[in-house]
Amino acid sequence: MKKIIECVPNFSEGRDKNVINAIAEAIRGTEGCTLLDVDSGQSTHRTVYTFVGDTETVIQGALAAARVARKKINMALHKGEHPRFGAMDVCPFIPVANVTMEECVEVSRQFAQLAAEELGVPFFLYEEAADQEYRRKLPDVRKGEYEALEDRLKDPRWKPDFGPAKFVPSWGATATGARMFLIAYNVNILGSANQAHRIALNLREAGRGSDQPGKLKDVKGMGWFVDEYNMAQVTVNLNNYHVTPIHLLFEEVKREAAQLNLAVAGSEIVGIVPLESLIMAAEYYIEKEGLFIYEEAHKVRLAVERLGLNSVAPFIPEDKIIEYIVAEPPEEPLASMSLRGFIEEISARTSAPGGGSASAAMAAIGTALGSMVAKLTQGVRKFESVEPQMQKSIPILHELTRALIPMIDADTSAFNEYMEGLRLPKGTEAEKKARLAKMQAGLKTAIQIPLATMRLGDTAWDTLCEVAKYGNPASKSDVQVGAKALETGIWGAYQNVLINMKDIKDETFKAETMAETMAIENRSRQMCAKVLDILESI
Amino acid sequence: MKKIIECVPNFSEGRDKNVINAIAEAIRGTEGCTLLDVDSGQSTHRTVYTFVGDTETVIQGALAAARVARKKINMALHKGEHPRFGAMDVCPFIPVANVTMEECVEVSRQFAQLAAEELGVPFFLYEEAADQEYRRKLPDVRKGEYEALEDRLKDPRWKPDFGPAKFVPSWGATATGARMFLIAYNVNILGSANQAHRIALNLREAGRGSDQPGKLKDVKGMGWFVDEYNMAQVTVNLNNYHVTPIHLLFEEVKREAAQLNLAVAGSEIVGIVPLESLIMAAEYYIEKEGLFIYEEAHKVRLAVERLGLNSVAPFIPEDKIIEYIVAEPPEEPLASMSLRGFIEEISARTSAPGGGSASAAMAAIGTALGSMVAKLTQGVRKFESVEPQMQKSIPILHELTRALIPMIDADTSAFNEYMEGLRLPKGTEAEKKARLAKMQAGLKTAIQIPLATMRLGDTAWDTLCEVAKYGNPASKSDVQVGAKALETGIWGAYQNVLINMKDIKDETFKAETMAETMAIENRSRQMCAKVLDILESI
Repeated sequence: MKKIIECVPNFSEGRDKNVINAIAEAIRGTEGCTLLDVDSGQSTHRTVYTFVGDTETVIQGALAAARVARKKINMALHKGEHPRFGAMDVCPFIPVANVTMEECVEVSRQFAQLAAEELGVPFFLYEEAADQEYRRKLPDVRKGEYEALEDRLKDPRWKPDFGPAKFVPSWGATATGARMFLIAYNVNILGSANQAHRIALNLREAGRGSDQPGKLKDVKGMGWFVDEYNMAQVTVNLNNYHVTPIHLLFEEVKREAAQLNLAVAGSEIVGIVPLESLIMAAEYYIEKEGLFIYEEAHKVRLAVERLGLNSVAPFIPEDKIIEYIVAEPPEEPLASMSLRGFIEEISARTSAPGGGSASAAMAAIGTALGSMVAKLTQGVRKFESVEPQMQKSIPILHELTRALIPMIDADTSAFNEYMEGLRLPKGTEAEKKARLAKMQAGLKTAIQIPLATMRLGDTAWDTLCEVAKYGNPASKSDVQVGAKALETGIWGAYQNVLINMKDIKDETFKAETMAETMAIENRSRQMCAKVLDILESI
Repeated sequence: MKKIIECVPNFSEGRDKNVINAIAEAIRGTEGCTLLDVDSGQSTHRTVYTFVGDTETVIQGALAAARVARKKINMALHKGEHPRFGAMDVCPFIPVANVTMEECVEVSRQFAQLAAEELGVPFFLYEEAADQEYRRKLPDVRKGEYEALEDRLKDPRWKPDFGPAKFVPSWGATATGARMFLIAYNVNILGSANQAHRIALNLREAGRGSDQPGKLKDVKGMGWFVDEYNMAQVTVNLNNYHVTPIHLLFEEVKREAAQLNLAVAGSEIVGIVPLESLIMAAEYYIEKEGLFIYEEAHKVRLAVERLGLNSVAPFIPEDKIIEYIVAEPPEEPLASMSLRGFIEEISARTSAPGGGSASAAMAAIGTALGSMVAKLTQGVRKFESVEPQMQKSIPILHELTRALIPMIDADTSAFNEYMEGLRLPKGTEAEKKARLAKMQAGLKTAIQIPLATMRLGDTAWDTLCEVAKYGNPASKSDVQVGAKALETGIWGAYQNVLINMKDIKDETFKAETMAETMAIENRSRQMCAKVLDILESI
């Protein structure tokens, strides 16, 4: 699963088009980074860039942008309405998908370290990356702005976390760190601005001042009226959607509105959001209403409906959810070949695709048949009694099928490493050794793939028994074929492992792997027979 | 309020473009009719037209269409998959806005009568217009279709309600009548087709056959799956939204779905609907959630949100609600003149616009100020104690203001009738008498308008006291000016009545009217003083 980190660097330049574009190009030019938005303001003399990348590329993008800023921005002549103290003023890293806060803290440290080395300028860690409390808040780190920096840097309390403690007039200083994804969210109210405002006061963290705190943490908000929609809105920033998820706020606003006999008329998300934040909402309603939903597309749709995200404009997932914006089509030649082409390709006089791909395909067909029968049973009145068992096994088989398909292509490139070894020169002894070592490593890699097919197939058996036991009897033969197909697939993968094992020199690896694969192969024969017995007795 | 009736005539011609267009043109050409849809099918060899009009024009439209059919359709050679027995097969009239079922029954009778006379062909009344039970259902009236007509017309049981009992080969027969507006409505389900189907079976009137009837009356439905949306739908026809309104069905589906642990994902209306059906939904949710909403636009939006009508495509009221589709901009030159223009127009050397228009304008300004203060008070925390009083008076003042504005223009055309009288010839005695009679009628009409202004203004006082008593004291002066403006407006209208009363010869009319107007004028002086006292003591 791809890791996605968002980076939102702010630069103190909002007027000179060339500088603005040069920075944009630097980010676009970095491999693996996708620039999502450029927002520059005349009066603030400031530009905010929003881009995403994974744990390595996001650092490269930020560095590329910083390099340009180093050359083209001079703080000495900078004036602007927004508080600032550096050419690259702040550079937060934000977790979006499959990354933890710690990883982001780590990323911001590496960035600060590399940038400080290469550019020779000071960096402060703030927010989650700050290791002393008084450096946590940005307003504190940026106290007095650029004009006060020269003195503050002589004060040991403000020794930069990275880079020199000297004042670089053309750059100033930069605050970097990690923080949660910020969501700008508005709930529509059929009422007046200050009714909306009352609700906002009750919920936002600051409440009505310190003696009357609001109910929800990490929420800033207020109420206002939008002429264009002819409705009032409770407009909030969710600073941490793990603490206060979107659906929680939506439900709280609904409760507050109900007490005021006000109607909530849907809501809108401004900008883009991580998939997780909507899945969480879906999970909440699935759990609350005891729903059975496993497809991601349905979860997203559920969240959209419950939160009324279509109220003022159509909510299009591919334009609003980050993971969908940066998704690329997968790289699988065989799997996207036509079935006829695939079979003719197998029968061609090329060793790949061969047995390996065929086995993976048959294993996938097996689990696919299983999940077909489960889906044909679930939700049918006369099978209500087995509803729970179906709901447990559908997701498992659904996922396994999706996990086995890529194995078909994986097999064709299994031998690349081995062939590289084969092509290494074998002049001197050292070269001979390096060559054999490379060939051995290649063989191990080649074995990993049929092995993965076996492991995946193996996890399907228990569920298959369930399906055989409780599935719709009308499609008995489908389960039979499914079980046999899976067994054959596993068996085929097993043969693949054996045939490559002969040339393995590493005995421990040989013994361990043989033990595991034989166990899986036995189990798959027994379980297949078990499934067939279950079906015989229906 | 404009009466709107929908007419959905079906003609037995679905292939010959010229005939299809000729009928469409005939309807378009009828004044006051709006053609909404033309739907013709090749295989059914049938075309369905949907148009609206008021109680007179809708008859003219139907007649115009029938005339064309009489000339251009010949049933002798007609074959088609859909059952039919006439060139104009059926012609139902359907209430949409401000008309009762009886009026529609009456309309369908007049249509049948006129058409039968002019075209000399037989007509049957069915549905609500049928006066014997066995003629109520269409399949019975149309038994055996066209081919069996020749014999059935000799049977006294099937003597046509209108027109001759002889067989006209080129026409056949027509069934006309009145029925409720049919709403085609789909509720989205995140589940499978037959889960949706189960819900439909529990709710539709026919249920699962006669021994297990469904819960809701006048509902036909089933469950199916829509690939394009990747969701299942409970798709129904609501044959009578007074018996089973949209929101009722929606809520029942939600309850059924909840029992099956299924999620409802909004809904969609296919085609167009009367405003009333959505207002009823809004009323239901207003009442259920104890909301305070008086603007029509907000009621529509509330219904849209609660029913999730945006789920698969944006719901645009101007394209989906009939009243909005056929609305025309109002005819009011003065009211749409700029304020500056209006005042300069008054001071021009034309007697109209004069005092009358000025009075109506001032009265409207009065109630407008009242409703401003009420709205400024309602929904503010520190005036919670008077929330109910505000909620009662806002709608009253809001409506009165809208009712007084047209009075400004009404005054300019008050004298037209009188002037027509003035221009009548006065040669012979008979002519002289007719002239004076016309002039007198004109004077009475001219008096009605300032009188209407007085009556409307008069109904505002009680509410104004409420607003004065409990309204936001910060805008005390606005209520004062409001009260004075209303009093002056009424007073001005009063002077208008007096000045035209002098030439009235009809003493009874004179006495009655004078009594009523003096009473109103006194009351308005007292109430104005009362309002001012209330405000003094705040």
